[in-house]
Amino acid sequence: MRLSRYFLPVLKETPGEAQIVSHQLMLRAGMIRQTAAGIYAFLPLGLRVLSKIEQIVREEMDRAGALEVLMPTIQSAELWRQSGRYEAYGPEMLRLKDRHDREMLFSPTAEELFTVIFQNGAKSYRDLPRNLYQIQWKFRDETRPRFGLMRGREFLMKDGYSFDMDMAGAQHSYNRMFIAYMRTFARMGLDAIPMRADTGPIGGDLSHEFIVLAPTGESDVFYDEAWLERRDSSDVDASDADALAAYIETLNKDYAATDEKRDLDAEAACGARLQRSKGIEVGQVFFFGDKYTRAMGVSVQGADGTPVHPLMGSYGIGVSRLMGAIIEASHDNGGIIWPDAVAPFSVGLINLRADDPECAAACEGIYAELTAMGVEVLYDDRDERGGAKFATAELIGLPWQLVVGPKGIKAGVVELRRRAGGAREELSVETALARLTP
Amino acid sequence: MRLSRYFLPVLKETPGEAQIVSHQLMLRAGMIRQTAAGIYAFLPLGLRVLSKIEQIVREEMDRAGALEVLMPTIQSAELWRQSGRYEAYGPEMLRLKDRHDREMLFSPTAEELFTVIFQNGAKSYRDLPRNLYQIQWKFRDETRPRFGLMRGREFLMKDGYSFDMDMAGAQHSYNRMFIAYMRTFARMGLDAIPMRADTGPIGGDLSHEFIVLAPTGESDVFYDEAWLERRDSSDVDASDADALAAYIETLNKDYAATDEKRDLDAEAACGARLQRSKGIEVGQVFFFGDKYTRAMGVSVQGADGTPVHPLMGSYGIGVSRLMGAIIEASHDNGGIIWPDAVAPFSVGLINLRADDPECAAACEGIYAELTAMGVEVLYDDRDERGGAKFATAELIGLPWQLVVGPKGIKAGVVELRRRAGGAREELSVETALARLTP
Repeated sequence: MRLSRYFLPVLKETPGEAQIVSHQLMLRAGMIRQTAAGIYAFLPLGLRVLSKIEQIVREEMDRAGALEVLMPTIQSAELWRQSGRYEAYGPEMLRLKDRHDREMLFSPTAEELFTVIFQNGAKSYRDLPRNLYQIQWKFRDETRPRFGLMRGREFLMKDGYSFDMDMAGAQHSYNRMFIAYMRTFARMGLDAIPMRADTGPIGGDLSHEFIVLAPTGESDVFYDEAWLERRDSSDVDASDADALAAYIETLNKDYAATDEKRDLDAEAACGARLQRSKGIEVGQVFFFGDKYTRAMGVSVQGADGTPVHPLMGSYGIGVSRLMGAIIEASHDNGGIIWPDAVAPFSVGLINLRADDPECAAACEGIYAELTAMGVEVLYDDRDERGGAKFATAELIGLPWQLVVGPKGIKAGVVELRRRAGGAREELSVETALARLTP
Repeated sequence: MRLSRYFLPVLKETPGEAQIVSHQLMLRAGMIRQTAAGIYAFLPLGLRVLSKIEQIVREEMDRAGALEVLMPTIQSAELWRQSGRYEAYGPEMLRLKDRHDREMLFSPTAEELFTVIFQNGAKSYRDLPRNLYQIQWKFRDETRPRFGLMRGREFLMKDGYSFDMDMAGAQHSYNRMFIAYMRTFARMGLDAIPMRADTGPIGGDLSHEFIVLAPTGESDVFYDEAWLERRDSSDVDASDADALAAYIETLNKDYAATDEKRDLDAEAACGARLQRSKGIEVGQVFFFGDKYTRAMGVSVQGADGTPVHPLMGSYGIGVSRLMGAIIEASHDNGGIIWPDAVAPFSVGLINLRADDPECAAACEGIYAELTAMGVEVLYDDRDERGGAKFATAELIGLPWQLVVGPKGIKAGVVELRRRAGGAREELSVETALARLTP
């Protein structure tokens, strides 16, 4: 993409509306714009990141055997009356009436609808287990929306729901989502620690929330540094129920807690391994048994012919929130530092002298070559000074900067810079291209 | 994907709620379920088709130089008051109030918001032309929603907006979208004829709608069969304004009109070339000048320093509606016949005897091999009779069926069937696999 034809309204000043660094940087880097309180438009650069986050979530869900569906945002109040949540949910639920005066709402979550849809395709124990998920916009009418995408009103969420015949199956489904979440966040370059959580308005018996460590996070977290050594799950066969359960049990032995769930005895036992950090919640997993299948009258025929209310879990990831969390976890004074897997482009190609024909020709050649190799390049071909181009590149935080100037081109070299850490190397064009292509 | 682990609630009977064939077949093939009047949930098979349609639209928009953004569904009434459309829009607009009693609405289209967002990133004539688009859910509160996805209330739409400094630029932007639309629909296997249209509630001077020919379409259309000969645009360089304009001018010379726009003199001139068909509108392009930029007070600095209200066009494609239109255009008594580009899977692998170990082993091998080659396979591994499997395969309409039975396996052959046309061939496993891999 040529920057001269892109839509990247960067801001030099930090807007007064933004209190936290991710919100400030997303506005400054031309990724989002607020269109109403707690409601945002995604500009091209922001949407590219959002789509990459979404795709990683999708791939890990699919790998875990979950099936993607898509529910409407507008749902009937009737459905929510069946579970008793229509009245219980409170003013965070956006209620509305259609032209025929029917009560509707903008879905804040979707346990009820998934339960009903599940019944459509599952009649007997042979149709279970099933795990269905969607990535869809939700609305929660926060009384004081703030912190940009971290606590917006309209937000993109992955919500998934598992259905099992018995406790052993339900526990395995929970564990599969647990490890899928660990893999999802790890692919995004995040340290996300699962911590035991309250079940809140969803209800239920068992829940973990996944907290990203970030120096500018919203809440205090405490953990045994041993956790960081045990988190690598790449050797675990997630389809082997026993092996998976054993791995998760080991992992959960290491102390990790939010402020509200601290255990001072457990902290004392950690000794010098106890770490204190700030954290941001990016996902939560719940098990709540037959709460909804029973309330909605949903059952399947068991192996012995008697009807059974399947046991459910629900699993959420804040997809748009992750965009904020990643920036909170990865930035410096100059701007954002995108982890490779979610970067909007891999390479920022910087032409230091757009008015120098030789330099421009070299850039065009490099741009064509990288594009042909499938590398995502944002080519700064604007007629601007080098200083302005470097500032933009630092701010938007692409993993690599490839700097091309007239002197270097005469000597046959370009400069390759790594955004994370700032390492710089002078290389021949060929060597630089080889570094950037897979 | 193994069908035994998929979520495909096919129906034997045609549901009484569905009046038209696309709605009937989508329900029967387990693609969608209605969750409220005119509001649908997409089940796994339906979502796969929707995503493929969406991706073709996205690729052709990107190829035409448009930039993808994403606007929120919930917008403030204030914005729509500025253009005068808040009152004008009528009861199709879903209006609501948030918890602080602020008037909001579920976006039925987004001229206003795109105009405001455009101003954020464009200050001078050097920042134009720009073309921004989104693929996002819209809501129009139809008084009598019907025909499934063809006239639903919540629907997925691609809406795009171009901004130009002058008429010549605006006409070229319009033409680029015009040809992008032709290419988009052609890739989906559709005959979509552009016809001059009224501009309706969007307002403006120039508009075409794209009408898919389908024997079961909603409206009558009349066209010169010469159109079908001239529609191939693959040789046209869309970046060459003059060549593009000349091509479109030639194309529009051929008579084509909806019922409301008939021209009996022009029809007489067609003579024997006049064709009559049914049609379905799947897209519309509008040019409306400075209507919105003027109303919203949006301007950029012209080359001579004076402010200019950019000229706009808007461009819509009914993404979820296309799913219905494709089925209307491509089905038979047995079910859907998916064009290759939008098929949910390419191949239905049918194991005729799941309880025969040799036959099952052969199927497993074929399934593994096709999957490894990147072919999308739905493997019917269920313990069902062949007749039921064939009926499901016909109904869901995958382009290829690969039929594996015990007798064939002993003789080293499988049967390859093409859904469109029904041609069947006995082939060796190797030859069949070679046919199915790219």
